[in-house]
Amino acid sequence: MDIIVLKPGVKRDQIKKIESRLKSMGLGTNVIIKGTERTIIGVKGDTARILPEQEDSFRVMDGVEEVMRIIKPYKLASREVKNSGTVINVKGRKIGGKKLCVMAGPCSIEGPQTFMDIAQKVKKAGANFLRGGAFKPRTSPYSFQGMGEEGLKILSDAGKQTGLPVVTEVMDPRDLEAVVDYADIIQIGTRNMQNFRLLLEVGLCRKPVLLKRGLSATIKEWLMAAEYIMSNGNSKVILCERGIRTFETSTRNTLDLSAVPVLKKLTHLPVIVDPSHGVGHVEFVVPMAKAAIAAGADGLMIEVHSNPQEAFSDGEQSQTPEQFMKMMKELKPVARAVGRDI
Amino acid sequence: MDIIVLKPGVKRDQIKKIESRLKSMGLGTNVIIKGTERTIIGVKGDTARILPEQEDSFRVMDGVEEVMRIIKPYKLASREVKNSGTVINVKGRKIGGKKLCVMAGPCSIEGPQTFMDIAQKVKKAGANFLRGGAFKPRTSPYSFQGMGEEGLKILSDAGKQTGLPVVTEVMDPRDLEAVVDYADIIQIGTRNMQNFRLLLEVGLCRKPVLLKRGLSATIKEWLMAAEYIMSNGNSKVILCERGIRTFETSTRNTLDLSAVPVLKKLTHLPVIVDPSHGVGHVEFVVPMAKAAIAAGADGLMIEVHSNPQEAFSDGEQSQTPEQFMKMMKELKPVARAVGRDI
Amino acid sequence: MDIIVLKPGVKRDQIKKIESRLKSMGLGTNVIIKGTERTIIGVKGDTARILPEQEDSFRVMDGVEEVMRIIKPYKLASREVKNSGTVINVKGRKIGGKKLCVMAGPCSIEGPQTFMDIAQKVKKAGANFLRGGAFKPRTSPYSFQGMGEEGLKILSDAGKQTGLPVVTEVMDPRDLEAVVDYADIIQIGTRNMQNFRLLLEVGLCRKPVLLKRGLSATIKEWLMAAEYIMSNGNSKVILCERGIRTFETSTRNTLDLSAVPVLKKLTHLPVIVDPSHGVGHVEFVVPMAKAAIAAGADGLMIEVHSNPQEAFSDGEQSQTPEQFMKMMKELKPVARAVGRDI
Amino acid sequence: MDIIVLKPGVKRDQIKKIESRLKSMGLGTNVIIKGTERTIIGVKGDTARILPEQEDSFRVMDGVEEVMRIIKPYKLASREVKNSGTVINVKGRKIGGKKLCVMAGPCSIEGPQTFMDIAQKVKKAGANFLRGGAFKPRTSPYSFQGMGEEGLKILSDAGKQTGLPVVTEVMDPRDLEAVVDYADIIQIGTRNMQNFRLLLEVGLCRKPVLLKRGLSATIKEWLMAAEYIMSNGNSKVILCERGIRTFETSTRNTLDLSAVPVLKKLTHLPVIVDPSHGVGHVEFVVPMAKAAIAAGADGLMIEVHSNPQEAFSDGEQSQTPEQFMKMMKELKPVARAVGRDI
Repeated sequence: MDIIVLKPGVKRDQIKKIESRLKSMGLGTNVIIKGTERTIIGVKGDTARILPEQEDSFRVMDGVEEVMRIIKPYKLASREVKNSGTVINVKGRKIGGKKLCVMAGPCSIEGPQTFMDIAQKVKKAGANFLRGGAFKPRTSPYSFQGMGEEGLKILSDAGKQTGLPVVTEVMDPRDLEAVVDYADIIQIGTRNMQNFRLLLEVGLCRKPVLLKRGLSATIKEWLMAAEYIMSNGNSKVILCERGIRTFETSTRNTLDLSAVPVLKKLTHLPVIVDPSHGVGHVEFVVPMAKAAIAAGADGLMIEVHSNPQEAFSDGEQSQTPEQFMKMMKELKPVARAVGRDI
Repeated sequence: MDIIVLKPGVKRDQIKKIESRLKSMGLGTNVIIKGTERTIIGVKGDTARILPEQEDSFRVMDGVEEVMRIIKPYKLASREVKNSGTVINVKGRKIGGKKLCVMAGPCSIEGPQTFMDIAQKVKKAGANFLRGGAFKPRTSPYSFQGMGEEGLKILSDAGKQTGLPVVTEVMDPRDLEAVVDYADIIQIGTRNMQNFRLLLEVGLCRKPVLLKRGLSATIKEWLMAAEYIMSNGNSKVILCERGIRTFETSTRNTLDLSAVPVLKKLTHLPVIVDPSHGVGHVEFVVPMAKAAIAAGADGLMIEVHSNPQEAFSDGEQSQTPEQFMKMMKELKPVARAVGRDI
Repeated sequence: MDIIVLKPGVKRDQIKKIESRLKSMGLGTNVIIKGTERTIIGVKGDTARILPEQEDSFRVMDGVEEVMRIIKPYKLASREVKNSGTVINVKGRKIGGKKLCVMAGPCSIEGPQTFMDIAQKVKKAGANFLRGGAFKPRTSPYSFQGMGEEGLKILSDAGKQTGLPVVTEVMDPRDLEAVVDYADIIQIGTRNMQNFRLLLEVGLCRKPVLLKRGLSATIKEWLMAAEYIMSNGNSKVILCERGIRTFETSTRNTLDLSAVPVLKKLTHLPVIVDPSHGVGHVEFVVPMAKAAIAAGADGLMIEVHSNPQEAFSDGEQSQTPEQFMKMMKELKPVARAVGRDI
Repeated sequence: MDIIVLKPGVKRDQIKKIESRLKSMGLGTNVIIKGTERTIIGVKGDTARILPEQEDSFRVMDGVEEVMRIIKPYKLASREVKNSGTVINVKGRKIGGKKLCVMAGPCSIEGPQTFMDIAQKVKKAGANFLRGGAFKPRTSPYSFQGMGEEGLKILSDAGKQTGLPVVTEVMDPRDLEAVVDYADIIQIGTRNMQNFRLLLEVGLCRKPVLLKRGLSATIKEWLMAAEYIMSNGNSKVILCERGIRTFETSTRNTLDLSAVPVLKKLTHLPVIVDPSHGVGHVEFVVPMAKAAIAAGADGLMIEVHSNPQEAFSDGEQSQTPEQFMKMMKELKPVARAVGRDI
């Protein structure tokens, strides 16, 4: 059901044209309601399949003031299609269940020794997934751009040795095959949330996809990005809130924790939170990790580096393994307080 | 200490003029550092007292590219001046201590019976402060504008009967005397956070001031507003995060919970959170209340109405007394998990 | 006409209750439209008088998913009520006509000599209104706060001597009488755009009101603020775009010039632009002044100071009289190119 | 030259460590300035080559409060490296010269006849470049995704027949070869402004690149994206402002025209404006096109469709050829008023 609001003084033949256009789209019987100030057309029929461009085409017709959409543009991601929460199983570890998932590791993979060292420490502290970047999106072309496929191997080895499933980002469709070979979860980063071609391709994979929210993406756009992946057959999508861009500069981004309960209402997909990128300063990560869990998140993604001063990227927001271990202990009672385990 | 960055190709006599201007302001000995691409002047002396307009006056001098400020513009509100957290005592109830404060009540005071009814219910549920609006900022001139002084009396009576301190908003300096007579805490609303005259006047009061964050105020500007109040002698300021304006529309505002740990670092003043205004939909209030406590807030402000459908304002975000009671029970373990009581 | 979208699975008696509530508000005959995914209620009758709080009251009823509003909440300010553009006559000078108005002068009035000097120079350069602040909203309590009533006298004297009508800001309702005595146009600053009590009081004045856009106000909220003034009988409102707060920091604010054509469509009130505050750096004022005129603005407000280095406020964005004179010459062909005079 | 601000109470050995780290990076002689409230280190030497990650590494050192950067992170794009404005020659037509460039055409290429029809009309109206999308980024996976390579051929043919150079977007590095074969200018769309791999690859091309601003990109980030392209050898970059995301919803985006003079100060690259995407409603395109030229833009990108009601995408913001022709006439005097031709 959609609503077409007509301009004051709309003419009969303008309404006729709108109706015949609706009819030509198979949207037959409509209802015209004359109010004191406006006349509206209530469109019956299967309006769910009206595409955005078709919606727009009514907006430019003579006599039309506004087109209001009632049906949500995403379907597969919606709670209306699937009411129960999706639980994603990755090598025996569940995302979306009672037990929270914690994905920890450094921003960039910098070498086998340092990475294995971190991997073992985060595992010991209670992380159940290992993260690490091999392909790095960097704002400066002169910055370290990641170890590439060599990094993927290091990641995969560390995963095998620790028994932790691994998650890493793909930036370029040409790297997807390699990433799929080595990773257990494929990450789509914030800058690629609307890289629609990449979304379609990970939609053809069997592996779960961690979809980070775009820096200025509305929740609706984010769910449309998930829909892209799901429309190609891959329904194992994990949403990750990581902060949006606002006018506030005391944190790197503004972590939008309200997105957690909003998503829990709109979608059946699991939702995790990355407070490290959200706040950008290590001193604020712990309180926001606690808040994320209290808000109902299904897990966390945390940056950990043995020596943040020497990190090739994101040192300022990385915890040391000791800080991570301490945080994990403090998160336990918070998780329990909201009926979860960690 | 301030830094003046000079333009490439700055001339000697331009630097001379800058230095003599500094000298005339009593900022004597400066250090000039020549780098490969820029020359900078490091300003010594008591730069803390340089006013924003004086800072600006250097920006427009010939040869100046940028002026960088190191000193924070707020002082009385800063942790550097007072390191230990401020605890505000209101009729025996503490704000900023181990026990969280919970201020509950309807958006608008609508009449003695309905208000007393809510007051008793929120008290029973564990609220330790009573809130209610007598002067209401409404976006439409045709909306209910509050009961005015009559509402203040109802508020005060309900406070006496329940034994709860009361908090209410002042919008106009001419109402301040009445508000001070009836209220235990004076609220400055989000739209008045930079009503500087009003800030100066509540600064002359002895009563604590609850200062809500402006809809588009940075944390720094918010602390400057607190500084306005404190500069006039009233150091009993409570900061209240209530959401900022962003591009996201699925919530009324974007509740910036990161502001809690950021403020805890920068200022000694207590910080509470109003999730009702932050999210604007009652269904999201409980998770965000939990998250606020987990993030380290010193308390909550919650809208409660016996019959949200009949509320004169903000019905959509108000809890019923039953929902409030249920939430209070659920908040207990969260508070304990972060070392607080409720 | 309003639309109430019902939840999937809404029950008969829930619809009954909604309808009986509508009936009790005198909104009798409604239309129920059942679509494939949603049922909606089209509300007939004089929905224009439904207040925001009444609208909200439907949002919290069982079975309601969403309430959509068709009628604009402002009326007096709307082009639907008055189609032709309003022209405001101030001492023989028109705002909103073919000839553009240019209001120029310093941010703060600092003394009689300096002010008179600027006044004569901007007049000579072609300004047709004189601006100057006597009450200054300053972010720091330690900054210069304006000369107060003494400043008003200086302003008024300069106006008389130059023959230019004068505009100045009122921040506090208690100063309104004095401001009305001395000023020809009363300015409501960006921080007071939603100071509703002040809006109501200037609505009782006979003098034109210059209403600056709030830093984070939507165009709709801005028009609602105009509606506040007009609802009290004063229809002489001039809207002034002066930049909104965004994430971009290379300019002080983001000057939203699109607001000019949007407002020209929605309202009959004149619209001017303040590029000085919009960009915050003098070097960007000229191009944005030209752009404002090209976009269809009815005039400009420009900060001019004889010696920006010595300005008590906003020195960084003030033009010298020479820069102003040069700009006025450059604006002439731009104004003519869009069918205006200057 | 960079500045490291130390925490109050910083210890001697902490300063030592910072200095030895600087020394190890070849940044030898530093200056320590003790102020009343803070001590700072002024870093000498070639700080221009300090990478963001190295900068960060100081931020996490003990005793460091803040690191301030003076040197701009982009170089090749900067006016400091090349002071005169870059003029890009595309098949004899210049971008960045006195004559404005106007790139017009439909959002999507929909077929040979309709495209050729539009091409001929926009040429006749005075456009000097032809635009059209073959690969379309669409928010819904169910929307038309573009004609792909077939569309490129249609575009190229129309270019040959009209004699207009053609511009089209590349979204996927795997399509780049085809796009380079058919297009005269390669467009990087707003969603790919930080698709760093794609930027590096177009940096290897010889063809000019039209780089649209990201929806939430700061001007600095935008110039860093240009730097990515230039760092790989392609200095023919054209910047295109097309609106940023803000809280305002009456326009699709907020067209940031201030970006034009800001960019003109910071970079030598040409700057054009796309008002169609910026405002999203055809009725606001003309005033904003005029404003863009008045603000100093080097050209425009305009969406034109023979039948906006039938457009496969962006119908709401497309002009008809008649509207475009009328606009071109109206732009002439505006261009002349600011010393340009069109």
